[in-house]
Amino acid sequence: MTSTSPIRTDTVVIGAGPVGLYQAFQLALHELGVHVVDGLAHAGGQCAELYPHKPIYDLPGIPACTGQELTQRLLRQLAPLRVPLHLGQIVTALQRLTRDDAAGSPRFRLQTDGGLVFLCDAVVVAAGVGAFLPRKVPVPGLEAWEGRQIHYRDVGPEVWAGRRVVIMGGTDAAATLALRLADGGAADVTLLHRSDRFAIDATLDAELQSAIGAGWVRLCLGQPVAAIAADDGRLEALEIATADDQRLLLPLDVLLPRLGLSPQLGPIADWGLALERKHLVVEVEGFRTSEPGIHAVGDINTYPGKRKLIVCGFHEATLAAFAIAQALRPAERIVLEYTTTSARLQRLLGVGPD
Amino acid sequence: MTSTSPIRTDTVVIGAGPVGLYQAFQLALHELGVHVVDGLAHAGGQCAELYPHKPIYDLPGIPACTGQELTQRLLRQLAPLRVPLHLGQIVTALQRLTRDDAAGSPRFRLQTDGGLVFLCDAVVVAAGVGAFLPRKVPVPGLEAWEGRQIHYRDVGPEVWAGRRVVIMGGTDAAATLALRLADGGAADVTLLHRSDRFAIDATLDAELQSAIGAGWVRLCLGQPVAAIAADDGRLEALEIATADDQRLLLPLDVLLPRLGLSPQLGPIADWGLALERKHLVVEVEGFRTSEPGIHAVGDINTYPGKRKLIVCGFHEATLAAFAIAQALRPAERIVLEYTTTSARLQRLLGVGPD
Repeated sequence: MTSTSPIRTDTVVIGAGPVGLYQAFQLALHELGVHVVDGLAHAGGQCAELYPHKPIYDLPGIPACTGQELTQRLLRQLAPLRVPLHLGQIVTALQRLTRDDAAGSPRFRLQTDGGLVFLCDAVVVAAGVGAFLPRKVPVPGLEAWEGRQIHYRDVGPEVWAGRRVVIMGGTDAAATLALRLADGGAADVTLLHRSDRFAIDATLDAELQSAIGAGWVRLCLGQPVAAIAADDGRLEALEIATADDQRLLLPLDVLLPRLGLSPQLGPIADWGLALERKHLVVEVEGFRTSEPGIHAVGDINTYPGKRKLIVCGFHEATLAAFAIAQALRPAERIVLEYTTTSARLQRLLGVGPD
Repeated sequence: MTSTSPIRTDTVVIGAGPVGLYQAFQLALHELGVHVVDGLAHAGGQCAELYPHKPIYDLPGIPACTGQELTQRLLRQLAPLRVPLHLGQIVTALQRLTRDDAAGSPRFRLQTDGGLVFLCDAVVVAAGVGAFLPRKVPVPGLEAWEGRQIHYRDVGPEVWAGRRVVIMGGTDAAATLALRLADGGAADVTLLHRSDRFAIDATLDAELQSAIGAGWVRLCLGQPVAAIAADDGRLEALEIATADDQRLLLPLDVLLPRLGLSPQLGPIADWGLALERKHLVVEVEGFRTSEPGIHAVGDINTYPGKRKLIVCGFHEATLAAFAIAQALRPAERIVLEYTTTSARLQRLLGVGPD
């Protein structure tokens, strides 16, 4: 975790899916400072993660568009507004600050697992189905070694060079990592998977099979059922149940599970916001949660009549932006301006009048 | 007015602007019958009428798009669903029917000034700023001759051939009509306008000036202040106030005012729906007006937090469609399906799964 000085801004948007990106666009049109944070390494959220190449047919005015194309379109629309996106990190802590009387004293402090700290006045949670977090190995007690011998995210050679590494999973990420480490100086590399069938790209599969044939990657078929600790407390081995119900011990120094990502509400559940079936309860004038200054838009919120459609999230983001602009500028009356006619908006967007 | 047999359908959408077109799309995705009616001769509403060539920059995922382009995009998206558009006519009467016990007995009867009658179960008013109706000549009492000697919409030669025609206005429509009638058999053609300056296309202006020079079109400068009736009750002449404050009489058989269109709430104001400052009051789960079965979406509605933005109208149309589908199929629970994955929706849209 790197240490940097806090970023002071008006608003932070949690989530860079379509609704989060449009939320940033709407906030920036009000000339509010905006930073966007997302756990994935790229913008697009569910759209980019779950159906990047499948067309969506019901976006108004866009007869057909894949999740990836929609993301590109929204990024292009947002570009002139120069909103910073902080990717590959999730907001782990959100804290309400005690305001002192000094003007400009911030209301919230947010911290990410990437070491960023934001001080801001309003937060919009646009986290969709939650953060896409790595699926955990379903073995009780294993979390004790996380960050030491078990790593769910990419780590450098200082962690695995010269060590006995077990990579777990049947994903592209697992296979790619096994090949890279076998080639790069691990003492030995075992790929642990429940079967010898991998749901991966054909070229990658061929490479993997030849590495297994040559003995560069060992294959261990089965499922971990228990962790074996050494006397000094280190994780020494996994107990594996094989397909034919045998037990075997798999000794290791480092475990790198690559079981795919799964969306989880994550830290958001711990912020004291009113929830209903894992969704943030909001009102519908400004999509405010139960905590003043925190709004929620898109699939993560719920209200009477809610439908989880992107088109609804866009509306929610628009009204949330107006509500936030009004709250942050209480002395002013925030009026509606049209991008078609407003010189102010056109200047922001870098487009001239006709 | 032609007489046709009533059209039986599930729903009628009043207004073919962007929100009305998307409303039709959303209703048709629920496999509800939809007919759209609009007073303009083309789809697009305000967008097409007020800013056809000016870009809109805040439609989500469409960085820049003129009103005309947006209309084309929405029509293309709607095309596979084969929703009939009835243009150039406004809904003049909306009547709640007394339902008999027979299943399928309709709830509403709508009538247009084009002679169409619809029998349906739900109505969505997506009429924007209202119907674009011809601006009236501001002379008291003149309405008595409307439809007889005064015509605000296009009429055939049976009305003007061999007659003394006065065309009023400084619009393209006025100039074009004057040239057409001068060329086509009116006894004589006078163009009545308050000044000799026309805010019209340069080529058209040149043609008009040459027709005036040649005496084919007479120009009368001034403003009508009173109507002069003959003993038999016919409109005989207009009293005109000239720029230098003289009065003169302009005799005529037919008056064709072409003063442009102006949006007016029109007959909608007479249907007994709750209004607030000329907007239809709706709730926000299904955008229902005060009358069960009548919904309102887009610029014509109002609710706490309302902002008149197209993106909000799209959301409203989406939720209104779900509410209507649910009301029309009470035995069923209407669930959300995604166009990305639903075989039913993809069949309707004429697209195959990948």
